[in-house]
Amino acid sequence: MTRTDTWKAFTTRIEELETLGSVAQLVGWDQQVNLPPAGAALRGRQSAWLARLHHERLCDPQLGALAAELTLSDEADQAAAGRRIAREHRRATALPAALVTAQAEATNAAFGAWSEARAARSFAPFVPALSRCLELLREAIAHHGPADHPYDHLLADFDPGTRTADLIPLFARLGAELPPLVASLAGRNSTVFAPTVGTVEMKALSLRLMALFGFDTQAGRLDETVHPFCSGIGPGDVRLTYKPQGDSLLGTLAGVMHETGHGLYEQGLPATLGGTGLRAAAGAAVHESQSRFWENTIGRSRPFCGVLARLMREQWPEMAVDGDTLFRAQNRVNPSLIRVHADEATYNLHILLRFELELALLSGDLPVASLPEAWDAGMERLLGLRPAHVVEGVLQDIHWGQGYFGYFPSYTLGNLYAAGLARQMELDRPTLWEEVAAGDLSGPLSWLREKVHQQGHRMDGPELIRAVLGERDLVADLAAHLRSRAEAALGD
Amino acid sequence: MTRTDTWKAFTTRIEELETLGSVAQLVGWDQQVNLPPAGAALRGRQSAWLARLHHERLCDPQLGALAAELTLSDEADQAAAGRRIAREHRRATALPAALVTAQAEATNAAFGAWSEARAARSFAPFVPALSRCLELLREAIAHHGPADHPYDHLLADFDPGTRTADLIPLFARLGAELPPLVASLAGRNSTVFAPTVGTVEMKALSLRLMALFGFDTQAGRLDETVHPFCSGIGPGDVRLTYKPQGDSLLGTLAGVMHETGHGLYEQGLPATLGGTGLRAAAGAAVHESQSRFWENTIGRSRPFCGVLARLMREQWPEMAVDGDTLFRAQNRVNPSLIRVHADEATYNLHILLRFELELALLSGDLPVASLPEAWDAGMERLLGLRPAHVVEGVLQDIHWGQGYFGYFPSYTLGNLYAAGLARQMELDRPTLWEEVAAGDLSGPLSWLREKVHQQGHRMDGPELIRAVLGERDLVADLAAHLRSRAEAALGD
Repeated sequence: MTRTDTWKAFTTRIEELETLGSVAQLVGWDQQVNLPPAGAALRGRQSAWLARLHHERLCDPQLGALAAELTLSDEADQAAAGRRIAREHRRATALPAALVTAQAEATNAAFGAWSEARAARSFAPFVPALSRCLELLREAIAHHGPADHPYDHLLADFDPGTRTADLIPLFARLGAELPPLVASLAGRNSTVFAPTVGTVEMKALSLRLMALFGFDTQAGRLDETVHPFCSGIGPGDVRLTYKPQGDSLLGTLAGVMHETGHGLYEQGLPATLGGTGLRAAAGAAVHESQSRFWENTIGRSRPFCGVLARLMREQWPEMAVDGDTLFRAQNRVNPSLIRVHADEATYNLHILLRFELELALLSGDLPVASLPEAWDAGMERLLGLRPAHVVEGVLQDIHWGQGYFGYFPSYTLGNLYAAGLARQMELDRPTLWEEVAAGDLSGPLSWLREKVHQQGHRMDGPELIRAVLGERDLVADLAAHLRSRAEAALGD
Repeated sequence: MTRTDTWKAFTTRIEELETLGSVAQLVGWDQQVNLPPAGAALRGRQSAWLARLHHERLCDPQLGALAAELTLSDEADQAAAGRRIAREHRRATALPAALVTAQAEATNAAFGAWSEARAARSFAPFVPALSRCLELLREAIAHHGPADHPYDHLLADFDPGTRTADLIPLFARLGAELPPLVASLAGRNSTVFAPTVGTVEMKALSLRLMALFGFDTQAGRLDETVHPFCSGIGPGDVRLTYKPQGDSLLGTLAGVMHETGHGLYEQGLPATLGGTGLRAAAGAAVHESQSRFWENTIGRSRPFCGVLARLMREQWPEMAVDGDTLFRAQNRVNPSLIRVHADEATYNLHILLRFELELALLSGDLPVASLPEAWDAGMERLLGLRPAHVVEGVLQDIHWGQGYFGYFPSYTLGNLYAAGLARQMELDRPTLWEEVAAGDLSGPLSWLREKVHQQGHRMDGPELIRAVLGERDLVADLAAHLRSRAEAALGD
């Protein structure tokens, strides 16, 4: 077989995998947007069938052989594609089918147990199911073979190339720097902007914001869901969702800006890499950096708040709002119990706690039954707060109930990447904030398109960020960003 | 292999085929309801991949062998399932892959040519593409082998068990009886009811009608599309679409009642037959009989028009409308050029023409280039009208441009079945119309559930109708229904 034949055979298989994956994405999107309640059982069968087929195709020994051969190619994209798929093939084949099935069952049971525990306002019903998930995760890690750190295998599912050994010191520095920063700012800004508005106008404004950021609405949609998300179904079809809340205009719009950031990344992936496996995001943390960049770096900036205030006045002519008010209201620092409602600064402390707890649970140092105590102690240490009960404590997030371990770090890693990217963008584009103040957002988008989006998954996240930023001190970038924003928002 | 093992191996395969089919249905539904314009190319790849996979699975020789063995089973459902799948397997394997691909390409080209011809208001651009489709259809028919009539193979794609030899005399009788009936009624009723209303209220009323008919909205949805349709995605998930037109309240609601009829059939298919291939409609004509029953038999009846007028007044308190007005407006007889806007009586004449033309095109008696002349002559003969140009003549429908030959008869066959079912229902349930007048539609639904829906596809359409109705004279039933309705609607 010539290299050309190999490439052709490889891309034929990857095209099918990509098509299959895009169907699975659509089915998942529909589940959250449209599915009638009585269709749940059928939807479970559809998703399981697609997942099984995807696993089968990925485990095909011929695909593994083709990918291995391509890693030796002289052409950079062929070699990168070979490496990426060889790794996915290896990870998929490492796990016995019985274990994969057991994990799916355990995860399913854990979701039910988590819901039950929340309803009962008690951690106890969740303990056996969560213990079972952890046990199977340890078993899966053993099958994957040696790594620098067992947790690396969990990160690899979401953020390949990210190493626990790098996260530990990074997060330790954040753990040292953030609490005093938060303490110095907490409670000093009490600006509230919470008008009650109609959801029809809210949708109109959301679509205007999406378009202003550069989202192509001919190649995507915006729909309502309970939990907002972005689904990059495939080329020409990127779908955002939001939860319009008439009494939370800023919260709703922050969600839209966040998902638009994800959507811009998906829309910017390079079409030329279709069928190679590289027309994909460089991992969860880089994805999160894009959503955080648009939600926080741009969306909460003083220049953009002026633009946003103008758009709001156009949408609601009777609304008296100015950029300063929006800026102050969007940049308060106040420790709070619920991660998804946390401000930009304290948010990362929630993540640090979860990372600590995941490491301790995985190693067995922390017994599952002791998790609520460890949670409450950590909240007290990092945020100075104690939950009144488990529902607003350890049971607040669904992730562990879905068997998602190793995902939480992506959020803070995304914030770190976003801080570094923003700083570098300011250096490369000195007129950035004047453009933003004038309502022209094309500059940041074209910078991100070139540096990040158009790279696809040629490199893993950490490598891509190094390639774009060199050896920047991301913790310093993030801390400086958080401090200057929050201080400016205190007003004169 | 024991019979039990055979059944298990068979149902495992059929379950996968059903899951695959339900995903394809969802993908098709989404294409018409949600797809962003730029996602068209991806959607084409997704649909083609699912179709290819379905074809592969259906052609699996092991499935063919299992089905053949089951045809010998003593258990009626097993034998019926074996026969149905053996036939589908045989039809799928009869066609060489190259022919299937050539047909897909020719159909695709024909759709483009049809659109082009309409834009150019000229039949000429459609001739080569339509000729190619017919040529490939003849080739496919040759592969399927001998039949009583070559057209039987086209019917089999939509309405298995229906024979051309039965249709010809049936349609000939209709062709003799309907024109004088239409001539005696045409132009004698000029009642118009065409208020302009808002589409939000129209949707609310549509949902009330669906619920009143017995559609379970927890197991389905209603969405907007350009061309209304019903998609039975699978158990618990049946989706209707409609086209709300503020200046055509009756037209919009007729569409909703029609699709609800399809939806009730899909929701009533027997859950116990999942995984056997028999949890399916008994063919396109029986499906059409259900939509026509609810749209026409019930929806345009005098008793129901009283209920509908009340619902309209509840929805629009300022609206002055009564049951008599609705009844008269909904039962006018007036020959017109466009099939989809035709009244209940003249509609069938449109279908008779298409059936004649399809037979003549297939045999080659009618050259494709002469189709417009033959069309216009047939319209003049059957309806006394001549289209001013091809767009409102031979080019009005997309079917032939999609390679659909053999589908049109299902519409009139559906009307015949609906007329017979209604007559039998009246005999079985003497209080039927009093119940309907009181707004209670549960009687007709439970009758149809038992006689039709719960039978699934244990029998083909003609066999099922014979089992339910015996040897009724369906032409007489339909003619009597059309005459009595239209005459009553002339008023006193």
